[in-house]
Parts: sequence; C-alpha cells; structure tokens
Amino acid sequence: MGVIMGKLEKIDEMKLREGILAGNGLIDRRALLRGALFSAGIAAASAGIVQADDGVGADAPEWMKTPGRPFSAYGTPSKWQEKVQRIFTIAPGRAGTGVSRTPLHLLEGTITPGGLHFERHHNGVPDIDPGQHELFIHGLVKRPLAFSLDALMRYPMETHIRFVECSGNSGIFNQPQPQQVTAGELNGLLSCSEWTGVRLATLLAEAGVTKEAKWVIAEGADAAAMSRSIPLEKCMDDAMIALYQNGEAIRPEQGFPMRLLLPGFEGNMNVKWLRRLNVTDAPVDARDETSHYTELMPGGKARQFMFLQSAKSAIIKPSFGMTMKGPGLYEVSGLAWSGAGRISKVEVSADGGQTWAQAALNEPVLPKALTRFRLPWHWDGRPSTLMSRATDETGGTQPTRASWLSQYAPGQQYHFNGIQSWSVEADGTVKNVYA
Amino acid sequence: MGVIMGKLEKIDEMKLREGILAGNGLIDRRALLRGALFSAGIAAASAGIVQADDGVGADAPEWMKTPGRPFSAYGTPSKWQEKVQRIFTIAPGRAGTGVSRTPLHLLEGTITPGGLHFERHHNGVPDIDPGQHELFIHGLVKRPLAFSLDALMRYPMETHIRFVECSGNSGIFNQPQPQQVTAGELNGLLSCSEWTGVRLATLLAEAGVTKEAKWVIAEGADAAAMSRSIPLEKCMDDAMIALYQNGEAIRPEQGFPMRLLLPGFEGNMNVKWLRRLNVTDAPVDARDETSHYTELMPGGKARQFMFLQSAKSAIIKPSFGMTMKGPGLYEVSGLAWSGAGRISKVEVSADGGQTWAQAALNEPVLPKALTRFRLPWHWDGRPSTLMSRATDETGGTQPTRASWLSQYAPGQQYHFNGIQSWSVEADGTVKNVYA
Repeated sequence: MGVIMGKLEKIDEMKLREGILAGNGLIDRRALLRGALFSAGIAAASAGIVQADDGVGADAPEWMKTPGRPFSAYGTPSKWQEKVQRIFTIAPGRAGTGVSRTPLHLLEGTITPGGLHFERHHNGVPDIDPGQHELFIHGLVKRPLAFSLDALMRYPMETHIRFVECSGNSGIFNQPQPQQVTAGELNGLLSCSEWTGVRLATLLAEAGVTKEAKWVIAEGADAAAMSRSIPLEKCMDDAMIALYQNGEAIRPEQGFPMRLLLPGFEGNMNVKWLRRLNVTDAPVDARDETSHYTELMPGGKARQFMFLQSAKSAIIKPSFGMTMKGPGLYEVSGLAWSGAGRISKVEVSADGGQTWAQAALNEPVLPKALTRFRLPWHWDGRPSTLMSRATDETGGTQPTRASWLSQYAPGQQYHFNGIQSWSVEADGTVKNVYA
Repeated sequence: MGVIMGKLEKIDEMKLREGILAGNGLIDRRALLRGALFSAGIAAASAGIVQADDGVGADAPEWMKTPGRPFSAYGTPSKWQEKVQRIFTIAPGRAGTGVSRTPLHLLEGTITPGGLHFERHHNGVPDIDPGQHELFIHGLVKRPLAFSLDALMRYPMETHIRFVECSGNSGIFNQPQPQQVTAGELNGLLSCSEWTGVRLATLLAEAGVTKEAKWVIAEGADAAAMSRSIPLEKCMDDAMIALYQNGEAIRPEQGFPMRLLLPGFEGNMNVKWLRRLNVTDAPVDARDETSHYTELMPGGKARQFMFLQSAKSAIIKPSFGMTMKGPGLYEVSGLAWSGAGRISKVEVSADGGQTWAQAALNEPVLPKALTRFRLPWHWDGRPSTLMSRATDETGGTQPTRASWLSQYAPGQQYHFNGIQSWSVEADGTVKNVYA
C-alpha cells in the first residue's frame, strides 16, 4: 500500500524567495504556515512522505487484532523509548557523586519530564522520611522556626515554570577542540519544570529577619550537607520552597520533600533536600562557593558569587548525531533561556554568522523559563554553518565563544554562554564546530 | 529540639478586617502576601509550626550519615508517594475497557505528570511499533498521503499547554445524593500537558482538501478502532497531531506514537494511536458518537456532536478526605478550565453562595489549559460551605447543579459543568454537598 513519490518535486523558486529571511535558506515561518510554500510541494517532497493509494488503511496492523494491555497505576514511557535516558558522568568509585544530563536532543517542547531532569549530587540521593523532615529558619531572626511538611502545606502557594541550569553546563566549550557529542551532552545540565511551593519571603516575614541580616545560608539534608550562601535580597524576591514538580511531589533526585528554588541563579544554589536556612550577616564560604563554582580569572584570582545564568541558546534540531536526509525543507529548532528574565529574541544564522534571521518564539514566553524557538530552513545540500544567538529583555545577549574565553583563565568552565555552532556537511552529518 | 507553640495567638482583628473580600473569612491574597496578616502571627499559630530553640539543626538526621543512592537513568517518584496513583473504574472481565482518573487531590500546580494522566481505553493500550506505524490522510483530498513518524518529524512543530477532559468527567453529579469521594474521583477524567506536534492544517494543506470536504473521520490503531467525526473547521483551526507530551514522546496510554489533539473538545474526540484521517462530506455515525457521548434530552431524543468542554471549576483544597486542623488561616485552591478559551475569573464563596470573592489566578492564564486559582480563607471553625464558579473570556460560566440537570433527561451524564460545593463541618471534615 502506498507508492514512494518518485523524485524531489521542483521547488517553486518564486514562492521561496518571497519567504526568505536571511542567507542560505532561512524562511519566514508565517509564510510557510499559511501554506505559500507547502502548496508548492516542498514539504511533501523533501520530507519523504508517501502517496497513498485508494485502499488506504484497509490492512489493519497486527496491534489492532488483539486487545491491548490493561490500565496502569503509574505510567511509564513506551518500551520503544528505552534509549531516552539521562546521560551519566560519575566520579570513579563514588556512585553518588557527579552529574546526569537531560537528553535534550531526544526531547521537544520546553517542559522536562520528571524522570529526565538533570541530576547533580555531591554524595548521593538521600531517602528522606517526609514525616520526619523539618525545615529550620534561624540565625538573625526574631523567632527561630521549624516547619514540618504538613505545616508548609498550609501556606499560600505559587506555581511557576522555571529552568534550573548547573553553572558548569556547556563547560566543555572551553576545550581547545570542539567535542563531537550530542546536544544533551553539551548542554543537558539544564531542565525546566513547573514548580509549586511557598514563597520564601512569606516564611522569612513569619520568622522576622533582623536589621543585621544580609545573607541566608542554605543547607541540604544530604550526606554532603551541601551548603550555599544566598543574598537575602534574592530570598525576599522570587525564591521559593518548592514542594511540587510538574504537578506531583518533587522527585527524590530534585530534593524530595523540598528544595530551594532560586529562579535564574546557578543550579548549585537551588539547594535540594533543604533542611536549614541560617540568616546571617556574611556568607559562609562553603566548599561549593570556594573550591567549586567560582570563576578563575586571568590574573590567578577567582571570582566568587557570580549567581546569574545569563542569556543563552542552543540549536537542538539539527544537532550532532542526527543526519539530514538530502536537500529540502527542515525546521531548525532549539532552546533559549536567561536567568535575567524573558527571552526577547533569538536570531539564527545558516551562513556562519554573516546574516541572521529572527526565529519564532513559542508562546508563552515566560521569565526564567526555557523558550523553544523555531525557524524553517531550506537546505540546499551544501555545507552550512548554523548558529543561534539569544537576547533577553534586559538586553543581555551571547558573546562569541572566543570573546567569552578571553575573559577568563584557561580552563575556567563555569557560566559558559557563548554562541554555539553546528556544521551541516554535504553528506548530511552534523558536527560541532568553533565558527 | 523545638517547643510547640503554646496556643493559638490572638488574631489581629483590625488587620484581618482590612483584608476581607467576602463573607465567612475570604481574605485578599495580596494583603496576605505583603505580610499584613502574617506579621499578626495568624499563619504561624494556625499552621501549627514549631518555634525552634538555639541549637537548631544540630542533630543531623539519619539520612545525612551515609551516602545516598546513586544516579538513575529514568527517575521515579519517591517511595513515600506510592499512594499517588491513578484511580481505576474498569468494566468487569474486560481489563482494557474503562477509565483511570488523575488523583487531582494529591497534586498541585497545573501540569499533570505523564504517569498520572487520566486514561480512557475502549480495548486496551496497543503496543505500536513506531517504525511501522503510518498516518493516512485520504478521502476528499487531491493527494492521499501516508506519513511515517520520521516524515512527520520533519514538519514545523508547535508546543502548547492544553487540558484534555473526558465529556463523562464529573458525571457522578447526576446522582440524587452527593457521593462522598475524593476530588480526583469526582473530576479526575481531566489532565493537562504540554503537547508538541504538527498542526493538522499543515498536513491537510499538503493533501489538498476538495471543496466538498466538511468532516474528517479520525480512527485509532487500537483494537477498538476507536473512531470519531470531527468538523473540518476544527481540523483547520488549532487541531494538532501530537507527538510529544511534557517534553518526551507521547506516553502509550495517551496514544504513542501519535494522537489527535483537539484543544477544548471532549476527550474522546482526541483520538489516540491515530491511524487514519478520512476527509468526508458527512459524519460517519461511529459507535462513540451514537451509543456513547451523546446528550439524552427530556423528550427522549439525544443531542449529538456537542463538542465543547464548557467553563468549569473545582476546589481541590480543601476537599473530601482532607481534615481541617482547627480554626485558622487556610489556602483555598482549585482548578478552572474552559474549552472556549482563557479563564477570565474564578469566584469563591465560603457561605454557600451568599457572597463571592474573586480568587487570584496563577499566571500565565493560557487558553484551553488548566488554571490554578488561590484564595486565603480564615476559617472560624463553624460549619461552612465552599463553592467556586469560573467564567471564561467568552462570558461562559457555570450554572447551578439544579439548573444544569433541568436541561436533560434523568441519567444524562455528559458535559457536567455545574457549580460544585464542599461542606466544611465543625469537626474539620469535608463533605460533598448539593448546595
């Protein structure tokens, strides 16, 4: 049933020109979607779809011939998706120390399913009895308080879609040669969830911070007692004690029964399994803000307390590991995000940065959340270099990789937000390049 | 460590009066959050939190003393959450026919985790090989087409957060006596996901529908060959071939590898495991639009093709199965949704409908998506009746239950969107009541 369409239909060059936004085939999405180009047969031809005959669908597939499997109490992905897993990098001999990355190249949209949220653990995932766990707020407060989970559940809640990104994400771009790995391996210390919880400012108002208070030391209930110093200003702004992730109780790997969520700040500060908030007048110089998560500068000094995850983007389709199936129409799509607020635009280049076209941003564009961008591309089959550049509502944008590197000492790996580039080769393979 | 606060602190009646929105204790959320009431100690007292002593957090809990468990390829919820499951109602002797409901009363926010999306199967969940599955578009088209999954992946995609609701959801409200069951059992044929896929209009433009075309018959590849007639107008509007759900490949129970998504239309029409779209000039009178999913009217006739899921809401906190812990401050929260567009307001009553206060709507308020509403309530400990009433941007709102019932023949169970009521008893228990 069905005959493969004989050959690539001739592209209507006139219509194609009407929709061109920038060099090397970048096309206006609205022109495409209103059918100006589809009716020219570009998509049908280049997507390799099959023209059906008159007896369409007459042969029922095997799975229609017997009853399917019954209901399930808690569903899991299809067995055909078993390769869609987190990608590990674990310290030798220390099973609970390291990272696992979100396989961004196998996902779509902007929400990260709970099972694939990236992990960064310093001594494994604690198994916390939620009935015994307490959150303490103490130090420079008028009333030191202890909250059970039940007590926190009584407070007014908020729900926000926000990304969390490890400041070491994309650190691999400091390597002298571009690494030929997937978009998930490059940028997968990045996930986005719908978080629900109690605004921290509400609890701090309850405890009554004193005039001397300037910092809050957050400590996790893991076996590393992972601790970070947070400016009080952030705690009084949009910080949240997150209890739910994508509608259900927060997952163990993300801090069950509760984590600190500091929208837009580096992942490590969003302390998981949150146990203590000690209000102080100075930072504590914890291990993870001295030996880790500092920026090594050219003069040999290290810059501490660089909290913000700046404007950044990455093209996910196409990316390393995917193969273009001949010249034709493709959708270039990817993710953009900024810890400073909303993404205001994403520009895409198909000619290595000579010309740029503005991509469509999938609505709603939310502050400090992943934004999916999309742009149709007519690939002519010749070697091409794709790049993306995000700008946020504060005007923050992405430097070139070279410009980003020049700020730091060699080997500095935190807060990379340089422009990333993919080379599409004539044979359809996609390579990571420094363009 | 820690001393339980002795007794309920005296409420600052002056401050409380400033924030009052409606009768029986409904309070302005903004007044609450800016601390006017928290500083009066209402929350601390009524939430039963504990005042900590000076040695706060000195005793590390057991789970901080040994390394936690290692990384996982695909995470699952905490073992402490094992009761958070879908709720089954299955036809006797037919393991694959029936429904399972989303446990709304155990969730927060608006996104439904994939594992807890409600199920409605007519002959089980087929195990479809995505490499062999094809989607056919045929009938009144110029070019009948067959799409492999790979072919569809090449098309421009869109991402939208949208609810799906079975038209039989909340049908239990047609019972003469209010059923004492959870909010999930009452309203859990309702879930909300981030869906990504290809706009159906794009594919229909490719196939080229003829002038005679008025309907599209959608058929699933399950063992029931579940079929529905969809007006062409909807197919050319916001209908989508959904391939991804909450970022990952659509789950088997929701139609892997692809489903039809018709935002705002009754769930049954959102055909899962989508296999065929037959463009026709008339509906097909399929089993699920004749023997099911029709509205039985007082005269004995049945009304067919009532597609829209109208404006609706339900209070989730508090609800049956929860117990109020004495007088004090509580957050009333729930879900509102409409198949016609955005929710424009949700009103809440704490005195059985005598007075109403407008709840805060959690941003962003998206069209045809679940909207979480929240309102602080100072419960004085006396019996009270809570109600919610949603209005959408088209002006559509909820009738009383009595008014809804009066439209139909007895026993008609589809498209219930009447106002729902909870009675909070003096002992803190919560009951479903017809108020």
